[in-house]
Amino acid sequence: MAKKPKIKFPSELRFDPVSKDWILIATGRAKRPETFAKEKRKTVIPSKETCPFCNLGKEKTILEYKNKKGWFVKVLPNKFPAFSTSESLNKKKIGPYKAMDGVGFAEVVITRDHNKSMAQFSVSEIRQVLVAYQERYLDLMNEKFVDYVSIFHNHGYEAGASIYHPHSQIITHPIIDPDLRRSLQGSAEYWEKYKKCVHCVMLDWDRKDKKRIVFENKEFVVVCPFASKIAFEIRIYPRKHHAYFERIEDKEKDFLAEAFKIALSKLYKALNDPAYNLFLHTAPCDGRNYDHYHWHLEILPKTSTWAGFEIGTGIEISTIEPEKAAEFLRKQ
Amino acid sequence: MAKKPKIKFPSELRFDPVSKDWILIATGRAKRPETFAKEKRKTVIPSKETCPFCNLGKEKTILEYKNKKGWFVKVLPNKFPAFSTSESLNKKKIGPYKAMDGVGFAEVVITRDHNKSMAQFSVSEIRQVLVAYQERYLDLMNEKFVDYVSIFHNHGYEAGASIYHPHSQIITHPIIDPDLRRSLQGSAEYWEKYKKCVHCVMLDWDRKDKKRIVFENKEFVVVCPFASKIAFEIRIYPRKHHAYFERIEDKEKDFLAEAFKIALSKLYKALNDPAYNLFLHTAPCDGRNYDHYHWHLEILPKTSTWAGFEIGTGIEISTIEPEKAAEFLRKQ
Repeated sequence: MAKKPKIKFPSELRFDPVSKDWILIATGRAKRPETFAKEKRKTVIPSKETCPFCNLGKEKTILEYKNKKGWFVKVLPNKFPAFSTSESLNKKKIGPYKAMDGVGFAEVVITRDHNKSMAQFSVSEIRQVLVAYQERYLDLMNEKFVDYVSIFHNHGYEAGASIYHPHSQIITHPIIDPDLRRSLQGSAEYWEKYKKCVHCVMLDWDRKDKKRIVFENKEFVVVCPFASKIAFEIRIYPRKHHAYFERIEDKEKDFLAEAFKIALSKLYKALNDPAYNLFLHTAPCDGRNYDHYHWHLEILPKTSTWAGFEIGTGIEISTIEPEKAAEFLRKQ
Repeated sequence: MAKKPKIKFPSELRFDPVSKDWILIATGRAKRPETFAKEKRKTVIPSKETCPFCNLGKEKTILEYKNKKGWFVKVLPNKFPAFSTSESLNKKKIGPYKAMDGVGFAEVVITRDHNKSMAQFSVSEIRQVLVAYQERYLDLMNEKFVDYVSIFHNHGYEAGASIYHPHSQIITHPIIDPDLRRSLQGSAEYWEKYKKCVHCVMLDWDRKDKKRIVFENKEFVVVCPFASKIAFEIRIYPRKHHAYFERIEDKEKDFLAEAFKIALSKLYKALNDPAYNLFLHTAPCDGRNYDHYHWHLEILPKTSTWAGFEIGTGIEISTIEPEKAAEFLRKQ
């Protein structure tokens, strides 16, 4: 019998029977309890000399795109993965609780320049990153135990970027995550009740109302959402109803790259290169029908720190009206 | 006709029709969009000379408890309230959206000593703070538009405490907040299905299993939850089934104060005075029956920063198993 390969960074998904949220115990990144006391945030690595992405070793390259100067985008396996591949989910019942192994793929999408962040990319450079996202998505969605593909990008120390060099992450998980599950449920209920997409209805209103629109082109709209979770939150939506990011077509990618570039540039100018978290919300790939959903990108600049009120209640506080934030962004 | 009093810090609750979460636009604390760029976190005020709570003016004192040295606990109105009282909720429909004014009470609970944090309090000092929480709860729960009373305490800069001097906050809101709503729903479904409290079942298991128990006395248990949202998360539960914090009896308060003191002291020692957020989850006071619920306190030390994965998915990552965290805390 073949020996089971040892997982270097085992992790466990645990289910909260009250909130019905999943959390992840990722001890791969962990340390002995004694070390938490002195733990500071993982060091930001600002010099090229010590940057792991400027000094690549023999990592397997999953994907690589070039431009005139050589490689521009590379996708690599994450060296410290929160999820690892496995032949089994190893589902467990532990008293009233349930858990399973943190099974999934974890990759990093890096760009070549140590100091050039996404907001400083050209439209065609952003397009290359988007194409890498899509290509990896299309590959990973068909793998076993992949119900969802999370794609996200953290920029800046305050937004939790543990490595300074610009990079995005792709993580697959064997469950639908709690935030998306709730949004899918809301979207499905609306579709059922009104035979319409709730996001399309919101976008129609926002485009008529104009107040929260930051930018739009033929295919995409950049908007500060009515119920912003944080000051200067931005979303990028396809104008036409599309549930599945991975089905985006070549000509649409030009418009998405433009909208993306403009959104990031405006934030960069308006907030003086803020730290931010960026992520994709799209229909899961668990084989069910999610035609009711409407994919989009969310950008959350780190304009405040969540404290007891936000953490205890889930009511997030934005200290500026999205209408005023959008007006200010339009001017940049 | 009497002139409507002008609200100094107006705020607005907005409903997200997809996630069904409420968010708050609190422009009272806000500034012009131009100022976000240079905004740093609100200054921590470390010196007594400039501390607003060491230099009280003519603020109305809502409540005051003394000990041998003079006043020890005071409750004051919050000078920069996120919620303000009003005669009307002013419910609005704006296209596909809905909103209402941020109507509620906002108070601060301060203790006298500028440098003595909750973890350093004696059991009887903690008891006085708990009694202040309860007394304010009992008063506020009967006010108009109070569906829930949020009580929380932020300790340390990284946990979002904007003023260094130890203080808790009490905020009432006219809605059930999203996090509690989900927990109430989970608790109600379990009660309906099994005729049991889900928290009681979890506590029974945890007390038999022992691994996640940090401390217990006759009335309370201190536990690192199975599905911890963050490393070293702690909850304090009454051992007997109780839905309503405000009904806690005098003799129970002694045991709660002891459990509270021990939980905070152990965290203080184990993690070297970490920043943390502490909050109460209890049954709402909107007049409905919540007998199925089980009130508790949650303490979330700031052992990591949420980044794109956590913010985008809602899957929170704990980098230590709660079993190991509890074992380490037991030793302190």
